[in-house]
Amino acid sequence: MSAQKPSIPKGTRDFGPAVVARRNYIFGIIRRTFEKFGYAPLETPTLENLSVLTGKYGDEGDQLLFKVLNSGDFLKDVTADDLQNEDGKATRRVLPKVAEKGLRYDLTVPFARYVVMNRGTLTFPFKRYQIQPVWRADRPQRGRYREFYQCDADVVGTDSLLCEAEIVLMMCEVLNGLNKEAKSENQKLDYTITINHRGVLGGMYDALGESNGTETNLFTAIDKLDKIGIDGVKQELIDKGFTSTEAEKVFKLLYMPATAIPSSDQNQNARQEFLYRIQNLKKSLVVDISPSNILAETSERATRGLQELGQVVDFLTAFGFEQFDRLKFDPTLARGLSYYTGCIFEIKINNVNMGSVSGGGRYDNLTGAFGLPGVSGVGFSFGVDRLYDCLEELELFPEGAAATTRCLITNFDAETMPLLLPVLRELRAAGIPSEMYPESKKLAQQFKYADAKGIPYVLIQGPEERAAGQFKLKELRTGEEKTLTLDQVLATLA
Amino acid sequence: MSAQKPSIPKGTRDFGPAVVARRNYIFGIIRRTFEKFGYAPLETPTLENLSVLTGKYGDEGDQLLFKVLNSGDFLKDVTADDLQNEDGKATRRVLPKVAEKGLRYDLTVPFARYVVMNRGTLTFPFKRYQIQPVWRADRPQRGRYREFYQCDADVVGTDSLLCEAEIVLMMCEVLNGLNKEAKSENQKLDYTITINHRGVLGGMYDALGESNGTETNLFTAIDKLDKIGIDGVKQELIDKGFTSTEAEKVFKLLYMPATAIPSSDQNQNARQEFLYRIQNLKKSLVVDISPSNILAETSERATRGLQELGQVVDFLTAFGFEQFDRLKFDPTLARGLSYYTGCIFEIKINNVNMGSVSGGGRYDNLTGAFGLPGVSGVGFSFGVDRLYDCLEELELFPEGAAATTRCLITNFDAETMPLLLPVLRELRAAGIPSEMYPESKKLAQQFKYADAKGIPYVLIQGPEERAAGQFKLKELRTGEEKTLTLDQVLATLA
Repeated sequence: MSAQKPSIPKGTRDFGPAVVARRNYIFGIIRRTFEKFGYAPLETPTLENLSVLTGKYGDEGDQLLFKVLNSGDFLKDVTADDLQNEDGKATRRVLPKVAEKGLRYDLTVPFARYVVMNRGTLTFPFKRYQIQPVWRADRPQRGRYREFYQCDADVVGTDSLLCEAEIVLMMCEVLNGLNKEAKSENQKLDYTITINHRGVLGGMYDALGESNGTETNLFTAIDKLDKIGIDGVKQELIDKGFTSTEAEKVFKLLYMPATAIPSSDQNQNARQEFLYRIQNLKKSLVVDISPSNILAETSERATRGLQELGQVVDFLTAFGFEQFDRLKFDPTLARGLSYYTGCIFEIKINNVNMGSVSGGGRYDNLTGAFGLPGVSGVGFSFGVDRLYDCLEELELFPEGAAATTRCLITNFDAETMPLLLPVLRELRAAGIPSEMYPESKKLAQQFKYADAKGIPYVLIQGPEERAAGQFKLKELRTGEEKTLTLDQVLATLA
Repeated sequence: MSAQKPSIPKGTRDFGPAVVARRNYIFGIIRRTFEKFGYAPLETPTLENLSVLTGKYGDEGDQLLFKVLNSGDFLKDVTADDLQNEDGKATRRVLPKVAEKGLRYDLTVPFARYVVMNRGTLTFPFKRYQIQPVWRADRPQRGRYREFYQCDADVVGTDSLLCEAEIVLMMCEVLNGLNKEAKSENQKLDYTITINHRGVLGGMYDALGESNGTETNLFTAIDKLDKIGIDGVKQELIDKGFTSTEAEKVFKLLYMPATAIPSSDQNQNARQEFLYRIQNLKKSLVVDISPSNILAETSERATRGLQELGQVVDFLTAFGFEQFDRLKFDPTLARGLSYYTGCIFEIKINNVNMGSVSGGGRYDNLTGAFGLPGVSGVGFSFGVDRLYDCLEELELFPEGAAATTRCLITNFDAETMPLLLPVLRELRAAGIPSEMYPESKKLAQQFKYADAKGIPYVLIQGPEERAAGQFKLKELRTGEEKTLTLDQVLATLA
């Protein structure tokens, strides 16, 4: 076999020791939070049947699925006719004949599949979290990979809004946890949790009366307000079949004056403002809608949406929630995925240039595609790659998160090396990750090894120290060197 | 979209909360051991280029690789001529045109690729561990899956036999750790670590003089001794081109009388026997070989192999190793994979009917296929699925490993529920995983939920307790119920 220059597929990454340790730091904070709130771990296979995946993510999603070639003679059902591509459908004809399986595209569809397959044995409400990689054949670019991790927590089988309130608490707990190592306020992740309700968006559509535009087009256009501005959204609405009067009306409904209610308590003030904005929209949506000949059920969804948002705020208040200043009600938040039906959430980091690092919402019919209708659930997800970049930019990773070994024992010569093996054993028995440099190379090289690996301490026993039953322990960061007994070494490293 | 009955691909599995918790228990013990010995984590992508994977696992391995279909118009280079299968080579012609990537087949080849790609920045010796799933399109059967985890630890860039000695220590530490929850000696994993050296096997081949049989065929046949017995091995050797005289000679060389050297110290006795068996084979291999006109270099590899085994025992002795009774020298151990060149290892569990749960060895040229020759390394791997089955059979999982939530607060009615949210908050702030049942359903149903989820405690506050500022805390396993203040609850649950 001739030697080859190896590479990895574009959009994929190797994670070396330092990066794995930092990623595990983030995973650990997320996992502990999920578990503290009673979510239990689930893992699903990387390979799913294409029949499970296809049609769940829209046409674009189907394109982006990685498909796995059938084993053995994968061509056995393919004919020369299948290859004829005059109709442009050759790949569509051949695909089902050569591939039955695909790679997990997200964690939500496999979760729905799991719930349906195990509905007989699961106890509802079922609260699960899932931290696993997903794959998308997207064009790789900065911050977008073909293999990346998602961290999801979902609860199905209850429509209690307590779940929504706890999602806000979990979001704060994770972000506060990630801020723990900040050396100043400036260095902290300055995050905002934006909340909306699909009923509010629906109410806005209803308020337009009978329109040539579709609800989905309205949501998609409004969702871009941040990026393309008011005029951009209006233009997109008109392009998608809304009249210019309708486009104006949307913004009249959305108009919400700043309402800073003076108060000495910032948290209380933020809570008041949140509720005020809901009340305000209630007037413009629900009250304005009533006389304009809209069906009762449509104004009902706006009413329900705003009531539910208020209920979430009430639960948070009962919890003694102290971070209302992090919470923002934004009636333009839409979240792309079409399966949401209730509250929707999104987290943005204001002091780092990055898309949303977390999002989620309530869905009333996630398992319907698998024959189990009417299971309500709510969930959310963290994007670990984006959080990683934020933490790196703000230098929020703890020092030493990258190291595993705590102490390197130097290897003086082949003869005396075995004499230090019992010491190595004692360090490990005390739970201190330690290693002996395996060869009697120059001390400078052994120190270089410790330094490169981020090992904080080096233990040396030359002939003198051996005679005295002692050791030299050197801390690499400070250069400080102490002569100690073994007990003192253990106490220092523990 | 019509409802479908969902399923998962054969040979794959969903891991529900209880199983994930138990698997994490095993992963945790392995990970902590690896880290205690100075191995640092590495993660490589699921997708590798087929150019990296192909040709590394033999013809059978190439067949078992899962290949991923190229994105977009994967047929664009396929012609009708390619499909002509008169020569039986249609799939071989089409495969490189439709698939460039495959799924990780083991952790060793990606590790070698990583080392070569990063040789400029890595500090050697490089000690890494890797715990990730691998995929093989094998026929699924009991204990064999198409997606399963491997846990590897390898060090490259040193030929120090200290690494081999530490592999024995790590193997014992992991197995002893898994035995920690055993309620009796009978329940423990009764494990044996078998060691051999490829030089010993090579020396055996050399001792046959010029033979029509190949070295690989000799190793493969001897490796089956356990399964097919002495006569079976002899027959296989003859079938593969060895003479019956040669087959006899192999067993003459292998013959090692039981050598129990009486001693009051079982560990010392086991160590002596190990060394005695090495000496014994040294006589039959090295001494017997010398006069029979074998090249000097060939007897040299047997000598080196036996010397190295002795050196590993010496290092273990220097460590104060106390489990020599777990260690067995077996000159018939071959380990299938052809890249091993030095010591080889294998662990079997004697009291569970299961193949080996761990194995490994030294290789002198792992990175050669990627253009970096002469990098010596040694490593080993645990099979988590088999360990899981062993632990389950012997009931070695700790109680409560399956539960995450520690306390469920019952939901009395919608009105009083919010009053308990501050209590929920306090439990969580104290680090106690807790949840409130989200709806005011019948208490019986709430208890059933706690029971099904393995939640050990249920907290109740009815009107009476509320008036007294107290709580009822019920332990589900015992049925015991106590009336406590919040501080007492926190103290009980902490």
